[in-house]
Amino acid sequence: MMERILAGTITEEYIDQVIQLKGWVQKRRDLGGLIFIDLRDKSGLVQVVFNPDYSKEALEIADKIRSEYVVEITGQVVGRDASTVNPLMETGTIEVLAKEIVILNKAKTPPFTIQDETDVSEDLRLKYRYLDLRRKPLQETFKLRHKTTQAIRNYLNDNGFLEMETPILTKSTPEGARDYLVPSRVHPGEFYALPQSPQLFKQLIMMSGFERYYQIARCFRDEDLRADRQPEFTQVDIETSFMTSDEIMEMTERMMQKVVKEVKGIEIELPLPRMPYQEAMDRFGSDKPDTRFGLELIHISDIVANAGFKVFKSAIENGGKVAMLNVKGEAANFSRKDIDKLTEFVSVYGAKGLAWLKLEGEELKGPIAKFLSEEEKTNISNRAEATDGDLLLFVADKSSVVYDSLGALRLKLGKELNLIDEAEFNFLWVTDWPLLEYDEELGRYFAAHHPFTSPVEEDLEKLETDPENVHANAYDLVLNGYELGGGSIRIYNRDLQNRMFKVLGFTQEEAEEQFGFLLDALEYGAPPHGGVALGLDRIIMLLAGRTNLRDTILFPKTASASDLLTEAPSPVSGEQLDELSIHLSKEND
Amino acid sequence: MMERILAGTITEEYIDQVIQLKGWVQKRRDLGGLIFIDLRDKSGLVQVVFNPDYSKEALEIADKIRSEYVVEITGQVVGRDASTVNPLMETGTIEVLAKEIVILNKAKTPPFTIQDETDVSEDLRLKYRYLDLRRKPLQETFKLRHKTTQAIRNYLNDNGFLEMETPILTKSTPEGARDYLVPSRVHPGEFYALPQSPQLFKQLIMMSGFERYYQIARCFRDEDLRADRQPEFTQVDIETSFMTSDEIMEMTERMMQKVVKEVKGIEIELPLPRMPYQEAMDRFGSDKPDTRFGLELIHISDIVANAGFKVFKSAIENGGKVAMLNVKGEAANFSRKDIDKLTEFVSVYGAKGLAWLKLEGEELKGPIAKFLSEEEKTNISNRAEATDGDLLLFVADKSSVVYDSLGALRLKLGKELNLIDEAEFNFLWVTDWPLLEYDEELGRYFAAHHPFTSPVEEDLEKLETDPENVHANAYDLVLNGYELGGGSIRIYNRDLQNRMFKVLGFTQEEAEEQFGFLLDALEYGAPPHGGVALGLDRIIMLLAGRTNLRDTILFPKTASASDLLTEAPSPVSGEQLDELSIHLSKEND
Repeated sequence: MMERILAGTITEEYIDQVIQLKGWVQKRRDLGGLIFIDLRDKSGLVQVVFNPDYSKEALEIADKIRSEYVVEITGQVVGRDASTVNPLMETGTIEVLAKEIVILNKAKTPPFTIQDETDVSEDLRLKYRYLDLRRKPLQETFKLRHKTTQAIRNYLNDNGFLEMETPILTKSTPEGARDYLVPSRVHPGEFYALPQSPQLFKQLIMMSGFERYYQIARCFRDEDLRADRQPEFTQVDIETSFMTSDEIMEMTERMMQKVVKEVKGIEIELPLPRMPYQEAMDRFGSDKPDTRFGLELIHISDIVANAGFKVFKSAIENGGKVAMLNVKGEAANFSRKDIDKLTEFVSVYGAKGLAWLKLEGEELKGPIAKFLSEEEKTNISNRAEATDGDLLLFVADKSSVVYDSLGALRLKLGKELNLIDEAEFNFLWVTDWPLLEYDEELGRYFAAHHPFTSPVEEDLEKLETDPENVHANAYDLVLNGYELGGGSIRIYNRDLQNRMFKVLGFTQEEAEEQFGFLLDALEYGAPPHGGVALGLDRIIMLLAGRTNLRDTILFPKTASASDLLTEAPSPVSGEQLDELSIHLSKEND
Repeated sequence: MMERILAGTITEEYIDQVIQLKGWVQKRRDLGGLIFIDLRDKSGLVQVVFNPDYSKEALEIADKIRSEYVVEITGQVVGRDASTVNPLMETGTIEVLAKEIVILNKAKTPPFTIQDETDVSEDLRLKYRYLDLRRKPLQETFKLRHKTTQAIRNYLNDNGFLEMETPILTKSTPEGARDYLVPSRVHPGEFYALPQSPQLFKQLIMMSGFERYYQIARCFRDEDLRADRQPEFTQVDIETSFMTSDEIMEMTERMMQKVVKEVKGIEIELPLPRMPYQEAMDRFGSDKPDTRFGLELIHISDIVANAGFKVFKSAIENGGKVAMLNVKGEAANFSRKDIDKLTEFVSVYGAKGLAWLKLEGEELKGPIAKFLSEEEKTNISNRAEATDGDLLLFVADKSSVVYDSLGALRLKLGKELNLIDEAEFNFLWVTDWPLLEYDEELGRYFAAHHPFTSPVEEDLEKLETDPENVHANAYDLVLNGYELGGGSIRIYNRDLQNRMFKVLGFTQEEAEEQFGFLLDALEYGAPPHGGVALGLDRIIMLLAGRTNLRDTILFPKTASASDLLTEAPSPVSGEQLDELSIHLSKEND
């Protein structure tokens, strides 16, 4: 049997050899009595020529083939004339003169053409995902995904980590996002939950003495979906014993350095920069700042605290703040109408307005100029390091609105004004996170990360008395403005874990009922431990230069958590429900 | 900061060095004013000595420590006297003289001692799984599991396979085992199912043009559990395009060769033997024969078809058969009572009796001897190649009972008579499987493997007319009497898939409703494809020389599918059920 050669690997070295090809007909053209096809397999494309002088039978069969037919071709590799060389094709200097062709399978006309760029609706592409996946950009994305996961594994294997599998059928815990539930047949009325992350299991693995664990772990969250969320997603899950947060961060960044090097050929400089959470908020209005460009927030509350401009003054009086962006040299390019659009944009983030000034020569001009004193204007101008032609955009509101709106506006302007070098990979650790967040509506504290995150040692005594100002021993890894994931040192002492649950409003009974096994485990020699979890899908998205998370998942779900290909979810039989001792609620009967 | 050294890696080369250790107190002994502890970490054990002459403070702290305390120790490595060398300990020629000790965490007295061998009940060990996992045999098993999966991945990566992830939230299909279901919140009354295997997705991956896929895939079956089953298990899932069954088998056995070599240091000879299904049944009474020993079935229906012994005669008249085992030289060792016990044993497999004869000199003696003619006895003796002292055990029944009971009896005797070399790894391919099985009760055919398995080409025309005699293009891999898994060439032609569904009793509508997406995909250029799936947990069990599948799974479930550690499954709140538009059946309200 002749050995099959992959289409995309045929070079001029093969000239005169008779080879076998197997693959798909990408395109067929008839020209002057000859038939040309581009044959595609997983490696790429090669042109095959059917010439009646060489093989009449092959030509006759080729006459029947259409796009996406699966064929086996035997033929001779020949060089092309200089005039017919195709510089756009990797195998463009040769072609294969077909001697025999066997149709392995036919194909109906596909609902869309298999080509690199497509404007077909995403729904149609998801329904025919197996056709969409034949497109080169997606083929490349999943090769990159493969390469990335292997690079991660190799790094961790080399560093003494064991890959371990934690359960998918596990226990529902109300803390965190909404669980997917699985009714138990054997235990009527009881349910498993799909894990939101292997958090508790990886801590138990540390208590089991394994010291270094990782898993490329599937996680599940039944949340309303946004463009960058999926009901099931994959996380690089890592946990270690006896390591400090510094050591974990260093280990993680060496891993990412290796990945970026192997997958993109780019050398990331280590150590990665670190930035405290509060600094990230103050400078970029975001806890996951895109540090590929400037346009940082400039705070002027101190300057305008007593300003004649009521909007500024009252924001500060109400505990809020005033900050601005200096859009360098863009004053002339932003009309009043343009600025109105920006005002509309920031209103989505709760900003009640967007004040502005333009520096003309040395004078700040604009509708609010008359409400500011000369001194205030000079101070603003100086703080902004403003020069002729700069546009200053102000938000005055409560702090969270100022951060969110200016942070978002910064990103929008950064993109629109081409301030971002898309080739850069700017990693950043964000550290010194608050341990707790207060939920005004529910009137209780929530863990900013999760209830097992350790406070930093120096804040331990404030846990009950000043919880809002306790910092977590936690760190997030940010790349180009996306949160790749994060981690923390965990609580390994039962007393501290009890205190934490108490601050979170758990009664002793509630804590026992939900997390009793973990609390028990803390009492039988739990080592100091901590780890990190990174979103693999998002890493792939950024490495592949894509903007849609669905492009990185082989069979993704839509925003309504449907699989358009298999049509999941779907109704099931009454017998199946009976066996599970559940009924549908009346409105579905 | 002093670098930590792993306890089990300390050799005499470290003598005189001051090192740091972190780990668990395995054991503490007080002797002559000194305290000795065995310190355990993931690498092994080392003895630490607390001597008041060296550090009084360390000794005082050491006096408070108990088993499973987590400690950090700084000390000097010293050689041991010849008289105190411990040859049972890998680090037994040295010890660490403690200078400082820090208690990192305390431990209550564990419910059982952390030691290699234990007779503690499995339920208790599962409840405290994190303690059980600290035991060396389990630590070793999970290191072996890690090593095995990496060897598999490396082999497949090197052979051009891409590792890909298929969905866990997928569509319920009634064919096969019982699905675990997941109610959808967004689509009330609809359900996802957890995959029993990624079968359809891996075929779709082939239709997506990837050609070589693998995944270490989690699979789920809601079945009543036996000792060697778990509700969730892991399978090495492989699919290829354009490969023949021979090529897939060769590729798979090279993979297993590499795994056994890397993990056990044993060289498996290739090609692996192959045996048709019918031969396996006839010779071993099993479709997964343990070929490490003989004691094969001997068929004598032709000899006794007209015997005066009614049990034999009527079994054959009713379409059954008569077969026997020759238990060489064991006649004297099996009393009538012993044989009664064997009779009881085979009755579990449906055998109504176990006839026997013993060869004394040249004469077959036993209760049934008088019902057989001299010629019949001579023929039996000759066929069995019986010699003085042999014990012949007969079952006469319908074929399935003869196979099952003698197959099981063969295994039982093989173990009891020590016929098995436990160090051997006997792999075997079982081939030429029947495509279909007839279910008498339901009065319809079922796919012996699954409905996507291709019949062999030469039997295609018999599919509708003589379905029972159609063979599948399928193969199972057997190791030491365990089925590791199997695979097949898949149907890639829509017409044939339609015919298959029809034979299985599906209406066109049912086939469309359940598998429409696959049938569609077959029409858009599906390549010839096939693959294999191997049970990873079972591979680990056999490589680790264990007999319980639960020992190979980090957090396993009991026979009632419970996790005794986290107490999953468990009741959930009414709000959770309301959100999912389901409620519990009355008896659980």
